[in-house]
Amino acid sequence: MAFSTTATAAELVRAAVDDGSPRALARLISMVEDASPLLREISRLLAPRTGRAEVIGITGAPGVGKSTTTSALVAAFRAAGRRVGVLAVDPSSPFTGGALLGDRVRMTAHATDPDVYIRSLASRGHLGGLSAATPQALRVLDAAGFDVVLIETVGVGQAEVDIAGLADTTLVLLAPGLGDGIQAAKAGILEIADVLVVNKADRPGADETYRDLVAGARNSTRGGDWRPPVIRTVATDTSGVDKLVEAIAEHRAWLVASGELTRRRVRRAADEIERLALAALRARVGDPRRGPVLDDLAARVAAGRLDPWAAADELVAPLAAGGAPRPAPGEPELAR
Amino acid sequence: MAFSTTATAAELVRAAVDDGSPRALARLISMVEDASPLLREISRLLAPRTGRAEVIGITGAPGVGKSTTTSALVAAFRAAGRRVGVLAVDPSSPFTGGALLGDRVRMTAHATDPDVYIRSLASRGHLGGLSAATPQALRVLDAAGFDVVLIETVGVGQAEVDIAGLADTTLVLLAPGLGDGIQAAKAGILEIADVLVVNKADRPGADETYRDLVAGARNSTRGGDWRPPVIRTVATDTSGVDKLVEAIAEHRAWLVASGELTRRRVRRAADEIERLALAALRARVGDPRRGPVLDDLAARVAAGRLDPWAAADELVAPLAAGGAPRPAPGEPELAR
Repeated sequence: MAFSTTATAAELVRAAVDDGSPRALARLISMVEDASPLLREISRLLAPRTGRAEVIGITGAPGVGKSTTTSALVAAFRAAGRRVGVLAVDPSSPFTGGALLGDRVRMTAHATDPDVYIRSLASRGHLGGLSAATPQALRVLDAAGFDVVLIETVGVGQAEVDIAGLADTTLVLLAPGLGDGIQAAKAGILEIADVLVVNKADRPGADETYRDLVAGARNSTRGGDWRPPVIRTVATDTSGVDKLVEAIAEHRAWLVASGELTRRRVRRAADEIERLALAALRARVGDPRRGPVLDDLAARVAAGRLDPWAAADELVAPLAAGGAPRPAPGEPELAR
Repeated sequence: MAFSTTATAAELVRAAVDDGSPRALARLISMVEDASPLLREISRLLAPRTGRAEVIGITGAPGVGKSTTTSALVAAFRAAGRRVGVLAVDPSSPFTGGALLGDRVRMTAHATDPDVYIRSLASRGHLGGLSAATPQALRVLDAAGFDVVLIETVGVGQAEVDIAGLADTTLVLLAPGLGDGIQAAKAGILEIADVLVVNKADRPGADETYRDLVAGARNSTRGGDWRPPVIRTVATDTSGVDKLVEAIAEHRAWLVASGELTRRRVRRAADEIERLALAALRARVGDPRRGPVLDDLAARVAAGRLDPWAAADELVAPLAAGGAPRPAPGEPELAR
């Protein structure tokens, strides 16, 4: 179904969700990225349709083969007749707005399949990471009827933690020969991984990495009595991908049986609500980054004439006085 | 000077700042990590003493030799008679609270030098990264009269951006042979680096990495007309460290001459004020992560019965009505 360039939120949601229009889908996700003022209404319209997609996070250091693995998983899920959405997030470049991903032609094998939707998301903004746009983009794909949504992100630091909060099942990829430093991060990895993947398992050192992870996985603290299995893959020729798909299905069954699926989803919703609530509060004191008030306070703090806590008090004082300034006309009520 | 275990903020600040007590210093930084209710007063007492330390950020992927380089820089600055503080931040493990660093005996060469203070900082908390504790710990060392403060952090993703916001001069370390993925991150690296370091420059591939960076550095957008120099080091035997110290001094001279030092410090103060202001707002609606209100809203959102924006509205409604709930007794007014 066609929709005009001045389509309302309801028209866009209808086109994307009921008619499966990829153009409408693309437009909705762009609105998420751009923090469109229509997001609030879109979110309301999508809500009753959400909660069905299986959300799989894929993370790991640069060079471990995340995109290749994602592509192999897309093929496997498609072979099982499932519709697949992919969100590729690039949190390592808040400045370039995802240009690193933008130039790549990604996963061309699936480019013409109408039941596969692939999208790169730039992660912008001061409080950065996956936080702002990804949960909303996920919500769009979920409502649009994708059975599986894969979220791929460079896995280090906060992004890893974010993806573990967002996904039902988090895959952490490692590859042999990426330096000892990777092993140093193992403790952190084991706390977010539901399934561990040794990719490039045909390379020297793979057995050692595998044994290391099997030993480490016994101490996983990610969730209840689930112990993350360690799967060996060579994603480039899809070896081991069938075992990976099985491990994902087993984790899914455990999530459902243990009640952990509901707990994770409630936690995910709580995270999103809290983030929006903080954004709303921030909007009420105005965008402090743009105002002369913050500039003046910052200059005084930098010069040692004021401490930052007292400055923060001054910044939020208008709110405490009950005279919350309104957002400037034309601005979305919730700033990202 | 001795101070009791029930020392007031003023006594602690006096012991740490005026008497140079390492125990008082350690206690102050622990109070920062633990978000002590006394922080506000401590911050007020420290403010007039701050703004003198030269802040150097050191970042890079795991395995490039950050700690060895930090140690070599400490030795070089000490040889020049300067007092040096080191904050080692581990943002990749919000869960373990810095255990990865905790077990290591770090930089034992400097352990007995009273003019060197080395501290690992765990980075905890939902909004994570370096954000919460590091600027305050920096403020403590600055006020305590350390001429140089080195902040070392695993450099990927948000942590990198945070350190570039916090430091006067940001060193980005690379090493040859750490995989192609590292190069992929180059665009991001060039936007935060003031000085680029090819460490392990005696290893195969070092010349290529060097040439690559020199070419890339021409397009740096980090700050005005400064083009980041590329320095080759072998930190384990300190080769090239003298050149690195020179490059840092040159960058410092440029910062001062161009007015960029003041701009960076005002921006740093603005970041900190904004973070504290948001924390204050958050405290006013109560800690939503603990309350039954958020639990209930999250369950409704997870079930698709409510959208997250409407849920956020409900969460902040008490504030809009002017009846801001007070923090529970005994809680710090500003939650981290």
